[in-house]
Amino acid sequence: MALIVQKYGGTSVGSVERVRAVAKHIATFKENGHDLIITVSAPSGVTDKLVAATEKFSNVSAREKDVMLSIGEQISIARLVMALNELGIPAVSMTGWQMGICTDAEHTKARILAVKTERAKKELAEGKVIVLAGFQGVTVDGDITTLGRGGSDTTAVAIAAAIGADLCEIYTDVDGVYTADPRMVRGASKLNVITYNEMLELASLGAKVLHPRSVEIAKNYNVKLSVRSSFDTSKEGTLVVNQLEKEFVVTGVACDQKVAKFGIFDIEDKPGLATVVFQALADAKINVDMIIQSAMRNNLNDISFTVPLEDMERTIKVLEELRENIGFSDIVFSPDVAKISLVGAGMTSAPGVAAKMFSVLAENNINIEMICTSEIRISCIIEKWNGIPAKAMQALHDAFNLDKLDQVTE
Amino acid sequence: MALIVQKYGGTSVGSVERVRAVAKHIATFKENGHDLIITVSAPSGVTDKLVAATEKFSNVSAREKDVMLSIGEQISIARLVMALNELGIPAVSMTGWQMGICTDAEHTKARILAVKTERAKKELAEGKVIVLAGFQGVTVDGDITTLGRGGSDTTAVAIAAAIGADLCEIYTDVDGVYTADPRMVRGASKLNVITYNEMLELASLGAKVLHPRSVEIAKNYNVKLSVRSSFDTSKEGTLVVNQLEKEFVVTGVACDQKVAKFGIFDIEDKPGLATVVFQALADAKINVDMIIQSAMRNNLNDISFTVPLEDMERTIKVLEELRENIGFSDIVFSPDVAKISLVGAGMTSAPGVAAKMFSVLAENNINIEMICTSEIRISCIIEKWNGIPAKAMQALHDAFNLDKLDQVTE
Repeated sequence: MALIVQKYGGTSVGSVERVRAVAKHIATFKENGHDLIITVSAPSGVTDKLVAATEKFSNVSAREKDVMLSIGEQISIARLVMALNELGIPAVSMTGWQMGICTDAEHTKARILAVKTERAKKELAEGKVIVLAGFQGVTVDGDITTLGRGGSDTTAVAIAAAIGADLCEIYTDVDGVYTADPRMVRGASKLNVITYNEMLELASLGAKVLHPRSVEIAKNYNVKLSVRSSFDTSKEGTLVVNQLEKEFVVTGVACDQKVAKFGIFDIEDKPGLATVVFQALADAKINVDMIIQSAMRNNLNDISFTVPLEDMERTIKVLEELRENIGFSDIVFSPDVAKISLVGAGMTSAPGVAAKMFSVLAENNINIEMICTSEIRISCIIEKWNGIPAKAMQALHDAFNLDKLDQVTE
Repeated sequence: MALIVQKYGGTSVGSVERVRAVAKHIATFKENGHDLIITVSAPSGVTDKLVAATEKFSNVSAREKDVMLSIGEQISIARLVMALNELGIPAVSMTGWQMGICTDAEHTKARILAVKTERAKKELAEGKVIVLAGFQGVTVDGDITTLGRGGSDTTAVAIAAAIGADLCEIYTDVDGVYTADPRMVRGASKLNVITYNEMLELASLGAKVLHPRSVEIAKNYNVKLSVRSSFDTSKEGTLVVNQLEKEFVVTGVACDQKVAKFGIFDIEDKPGLATVVFQALADAKINVDMIIQSAMRNNLNDISFTVPLEDMERTIKVLEELRENIGFSDIVFSPDVAKISLVGAGMTSAPGVAAKMFSVLAENNINIEMICTSEIRISCIIEKWNGIPAKAMQALHDAFNLDKLDQVTE
């Protein structure tokens, strides 16, 4: 008898048949006496159609885009409740505003600020399965917001955190977290367990399994998180936890190919000028990732940084607007780069990982353009053309023996 | 400079092109300095698709059906705001719950209990056009409801009443209210002006132009109502007002072909038995229309009544359940009837209208099965087969010279 939050993605609820299959799976948990909150995404394909509907107009306001985009999950919640009811399981659907998924007003990529649980607790007490619309929320003014890419994961973890769920299961189209993307790397193996921090790095780095914001919330509120296959529910999946008994030096290789690299040159070495640049980018809600300031030449600085590929055009615009005030000579940028990363909680206490990574890449004639490290990861910006990222991933996966990772669940 | 509520139906917002045309029409009002609240229906065809989506499941709860059905208007409001924004007109969309269209919990046919106007007033003060989702509301518990057939008319009139609009324009696919359905009756002519009471009778009687509930609210709150064509906005339409200077004895002939007739026979003449029958039907939310109790034979009563055709099956079920308690001998029913009605505010003071109606029908060999009258209308139940209703309408329209109605706008 536990309180379990489950999240099903778009392909899992993409058709009436799939919705019925999900309902049957939920039924097995209900039969075992668990309380359940189910978070669902829009049926696969529907969000694309809704986006297309907004693209028929010009100068679309983000607020109205959200009114349109939030429709997809509303279809999913109604259908899943209908499928559960067919099986005789009492259930009730809830949109983001009905549950009280309170967000800021940053339309199309809002952040959850608070989650209300009164209504959910009442419905659970009445024995109902709650089917909650993922991806959407409501501002303090009552405006509909959406959370952006991966928003349904975030919704699931946020409600799990707020209501104190015993477990949050993310059902997706892969059966867990792998040492590398199995579509790109031979020998990629499934991890039985991984730490929040490792997952956070992997999620941020383009592993695409979980949205970073959802892992961040899980970590902050210590939500026991599980990533599982919605197509083969017999498989165990990957458990995301706070700490492992045995930490691996390297647990995964990730590659983010949706990055753009920027360089601005010959900036006067006055204090605060870098701040102006990055504050302007922050104000434009552009997430700057790696930042490198090179050594001074003639009192002039060069700054390089990366941003998500989708923000490249906006970044160019922000920089052009600053050019006059800051006085840099040139802006260069490139969308033809990838960020390849090694992640591992044991990295802190194992020197030489970075050196080995650089030498593996060098041996494969892969040029490193930028480097950035955290306690548990090392990332390099490399070129994207000619299959270089796949080659780099395979080489690193092989060199660190990730196909032979001997992992036992806690 | 007036505050105008406009309502556009599903065909008026059925495509991006139509939505743009509506936006352009709204722009002309905005240019003239008017404040505007626009109520829209779901794009034509969308509601059918949503209904079809719910019909893939069995035992669908009305609550979840409403979650699904309310999606259609959400598409319309987002699209219309986008089209208005394209023209440089500031606008904001509002769903039923965002505006605060508060209803009872009678899902799929909820009644509006109250309408909040705070948010609307704030947005209007900021110069924005408000685009409100018709047909939908929210219960005190925060559940989504829909208002049933014609619900968007009701939404428009309710917000007009609540906010004290100067005018409520209903744009529809006909250019006004006619003396009879022009598709059925030769010489049917458009009325420039009509009273609430006449409109109420016509709306209830199947004239299909306005939903009776919307006329009822307009009458109660004295909302100046106008029915106009959304396809030819140059036409004046029909104004619905409280009283006319010159009242016509008969202003229209209406025919409702979606009626079912019931008879229950040999009911013991105990006080309260009829009450039991009609209370049970009321509890099942079945709107009983005409009721006739025939003279007693041997202390046994016969009762005849009509219900909307769509409620026929449910009515049979309710009656079968009562049969044991009440002890009537037989239930007969027929879906093959139509209700034909004459309406006119001047009828009260003009005797002989009923007699003339009956004789016209008799001359045309049309049998009258039931009769029911109010102060301003006379209705007869007649047979539906073999084009009888059309024949009856034409005969009455001709006999009362409705093609020559000489009407001048107030």
